[in-house]
Amino acid sequence: MDYRGIFQNAVDQLHAEKRYRVFANLERIAGRFPRALHRSGDTMREVTVWCSNDYLGMGQHDDVIDALCNAAGKMGSGAGGTRNISGTNHPLVELEHELADLHGKEAALVFTSGFISNDASISTIAKLLPNCLILSDELNHASMIEGVKRSGAEKKIFRHNDLEHLEDLLASADPLRAKLIVFESVYSMDGDIAPIEAIADLADKYNAMTYIDEVHAVGMYGLRGGGITDRDGLASRIDVIEGTLAKAFGALGGYITGSRALIDAVRSYAPGFIFTTALPPSIAAAATASIRHLKTSQTERALHQLQARKTKDALSAAGLPVMPSDTHIVPVLVGDPELCKKASDRLMDVHGIYIQPINYPTVPRGTERLRITPSPFHDDALIADLVGALTEVWNTLGIPFAGNESAEDARNDRIVRLPVSKAGG
Amino acid sequence: MDYRGIFQNAVDQLHAEKRYRVFANLERIAGRFPRALHRSGDTMREVTVWCSNDYLGMGQHDDVIDALCNAAGKMGSGAGGTRNISGTNHPLVELEHELADLHGKEAALVFTSGFISNDASISTIAKLLPNCLILSDELNHASMIEGVKRSGAEKKIFRHNDLEHLEDLLASADPLRAKLIVFESVYSMDGDIAPIEAIADLADKYNAMTYIDEVHAVGMYGLRGGGITDRDGLASRIDVIEGTLAKAFGALGGYITGSRALIDAVRSYAPGFIFTTALPPSIAAAATASIRHLKTSQTERALHQLQARKTKDALSAAGLPVMPSDTHIVPVLVGDPELCKKASDRLMDVHGIYIQPINYPTVPRGTERLRITPSPFHDDALIADLVGALTEVWNTLGIPFAGNESAEDARNDRIVRLPVSKAGG
Repeated sequence: MDYRGIFQNAVDQLHAEKRYRVFANLERIAGRFPRALHRSGDTMREVTVWCSNDYLGMGQHDDVIDALCNAAGKMGSGAGGTRNISGTNHPLVELEHELADLHGKEAALVFTSGFISNDASISTIAKLLPNCLILSDELNHASMIEGVKRSGAEKKIFRHNDLEHLEDLLASADPLRAKLIVFESVYSMDGDIAPIEAIADLADKYNAMTYIDEVHAVGMYGLRGGGITDRDGLASRIDVIEGTLAKAFGALGGYITGSRALIDAVRSYAPGFIFTTALPPSIAAAATASIRHLKTSQTERALHQLQARKTKDALSAAGLPVMPSDTHIVPVLVGDPELCKKASDRLMDVHGIYIQPINYPTVPRGTERLRITPSPFHDDALIADLVGALTEVWNTLGIPFAGNESAEDARNDRIVRLPVSKAGG
Repeated sequence: MDYRGIFQNAVDQLHAEKRYRVFANLERIAGRFPRALHRSGDTMREVTVWCSNDYLGMGQHDDVIDALCNAAGKMGSGAGGTRNISGTNHPLVELEHELADLHGKEAALVFTSGFISNDASISTIAKLLPNCLILSDELNHASMIEGVKRSGAEKKIFRHNDLEHLEDLLASADPLRAKLIVFESVYSMDGDIAPIEAIADLADKYNAMTYIDEVHAVGMYGLRGGGITDRDGLASRIDVIEGTLAKAFGALGGYITGSRALIDAVRSYAPGFIFTTALPPSIAAAATASIRHLKTSQTERALHQLQARKTKDALSAAGLPVMPSDTHIVPVLVGDPELCKKASDRLMDVHGIYIQPINYPTVPRGTERLRITPSPFHDDALIADLVGALTEVWNTLGIPFAGNESAEDARNDRIVRLPVSKAGG
C-alpha cells in the first residue's frame, strides 16, 4: 500500500482541476485596516485586502484589542481546560449573557468556532428530537450540512429560498413528526437574504422548529447588531439563532442562542462542545467588547452600508459585471475558474490588491467570481483604485464586461442553479 | 410537538442520573497560578485549582502573554477569514513551521481545536484511503471516535493497549487493504502510556499507517517537549502525530504533523479545516512562544515530574487510594458518582480546593474519581494542604481509604473494564 502516493494523487487531482488552493501569507496592520503585509517567497510588501470577513474592521478597534490584552494580562493566555474541567472562565460567562441579550433569548452557548457551533448544535438538536425530519436550504454552509449528516436524521433539501418548495415538503410530512427548518439569513457568496418571516409563518403552520445561521449578519444589521432578525423584528419568531464572533465582531468562536432548556440540552449532550478546551478569556473579552460597542454605535453599520453601496455603484458604472446582492457582499462575475485565479493573481501582482478567487465547489461551475467585501475603512480613494485595477485586469485578461445587458441578466444567463454543498472556505 | 418539553426532559434525565454538570465560574490569576477567583451566586473567593490542563502553567508565562499582546496590538484581535480567504496570518505560518520542527516532520497543519483536528484529520485520511480499515484503541478520546465515525470507514476496536488483540485484528484483515491504527500516547483519565514502539512494529509488519494523539504529552515529555514519541525517539516511526496548543502550551487550537503530501491532502479536503475562520495571530504567536520556550528549557518538565511524584507519594502515604499512573496525572479513586460529586463540592466549599468530579461516561461506572493534575507551581505547601483536605473529606464522607490493600489491588477489584466512549470533558 503506497500511502504517500495516495495522498499525493489526491493533491495532484486538485492541481489538474485548477482547484488547488494557495493561501496568502498576510500580516494585517492594526490601525491601518484594510492594509496588510503580504509575504511571497522572500519578498514582502503592503497590499489592500478587499476580501476580509472582518466586515466592520472591529479587529483593530482599540476597545477590542485593549479588552483582549487586559484579560490576557490578568488571566493568562489560555482557558486551561474544557468547560466542565476548569475551563469556564468569567469572561466567557459574561459573553454568553451578552449574546443571549443581543438576540433577546433566554440563554446562549459559545463554541470554539462557528463551524463547530453549527455542526454540534444541529446534530444534537436533531438527535434529541424523536424521528426528526430536517428541512435544509440547498445553499446552506458546509458546517450546517455536516451537522445535518452527523445527526443521522432524515433530511429534505428545499430549493434556495423557495417557500413553495419548503411548504410542499412540510405539507407532505407526517403532521405529528418533529421538524427542524435549517437556513441562513444572509447567504455569503451571493449576498441575498432569506424570507425569514414567511419561513417562520410556515414553521408555525406546520409546527416546525426553526434554526437560522446569522454569521454574515450579526454586528452588521439591526439597531443593536443582532442581525437580519434584529433589523426585521423577527428574533422572537426563530427558535435558534446561530452566529459567529469571528466575522463582524472581529474575534474567534461561534454560538447559539435559544430557550434555556434547548441551550442546556446542547450544552449537556454535544460532544463537540463538551470535549474541547474552552475559548480563552482574552478572546471572550475581546468579543464582548466588540458586541457591546456595536449594540449602541450605529457609525460602523451606516458607513459599512454606504461604502458597500458606493463600491457596487462605482463597479457597475465602469461596466464590471456586479452580481445583484441585497447586502454588503459584492460579487463580481468571472465565470471561468482559470480566469478567476488569473484575475486574482494579477490584482495582487500588478495592483497590490488582494481578492481571493471563488471557484467550484464553493460556488456552482460557471459562476466563478471575485467576492468583494467593502468595510467602513475602504474609503472613496480605495474604491477608485479598485475600479481602476479591476478594469485593467478585465481588459488585459479579456473577461466579459456587463456590456449592454444588465448585471442581473448576465447572471441569470450564466447561472445554472446547482445544489452547492459548501460556501465560505 | 412539545419541543421545549423534549429538551427539558433530556436535561431532567441527567439530573436523575446525577450526571448533570455544573461549570465552575473561574478567573485564573496570571502570575499566581494555580490560584483563581471562583464566583458562585453573589460570592467570590480565591481557590486553588488542582485539575487544570494548563499542565505546566505556561498560560501565565511572561513570554507567552507578551507574544499574545504584541501580536494583537500589531495585527488586531481576529484572523478575519478562513485560511483560504484572507485568514492565513504570518504568526500561524510560523507556528506550523515550529510544529513540524518539533516533531521532526515535513509539515504541520493547525486547527481551531484539538477536537476538530482529530475529527477532521482522521475522517479525511480514512476517506482518502481506498476501502480503509481503522483499528482504534477502545479508550480513545471522543474527538477520535467522532473522526472514525465521520469517515464512514469500517472500524475494529482493539482492547486498551492490548498488542495481541491488535495483532489478531491486523492479521485477520486483507493484507492488501489500507489500514490506519489510531491511538493515544498518554490516556488522560488513567495516566497510562501506550506501547508505541510495539504498535509501530506491528504497523510495519502489516503495512498499516499510524496516527497518535499526543495531546496529554506535548510540551511535557521529551528533551524538546515533543511528547512521548520525542522522549522515546519514536517520532519517525509514526505517520501522523496530533497534538494540542491548549494544554501544556497554554493557548488554544490543535494540529497534526506528518508528510508534506498527507498534510496537503488534509489541508485541501477536510471541511472542518477549510470552512472555518483561522486562529487569530495573537493565539498563534502565544503558542509559538510557548513551544519555543519548552524546546530548550527543561525546568518546567523537571519540576512538573517532581511535584507530580511528590503529590502521589504524599497522598499514598496518607492512605488515599491513588490509582497507578505512569505520568503526571494523579487519579484518586472514589468509586461512586454521588460521593464523587460530594467530595468535589466539599473540597471547594470547606477547603477552597477545586477538583472536578470525573464520573461516567467519562470513566467506567465504579471507577468514579478525582483527577488531580499537579503542575510545577503546585508547591510543597499546596501539596500538604491537599493531603489534609482530602483526608478530611474522605473521613467525613466515609469514602474508602486504600487501607491494607494496595491502590492497585483496590483498582483491579473495582474496575470492570467497559469500552468507554469518551474522555476529558
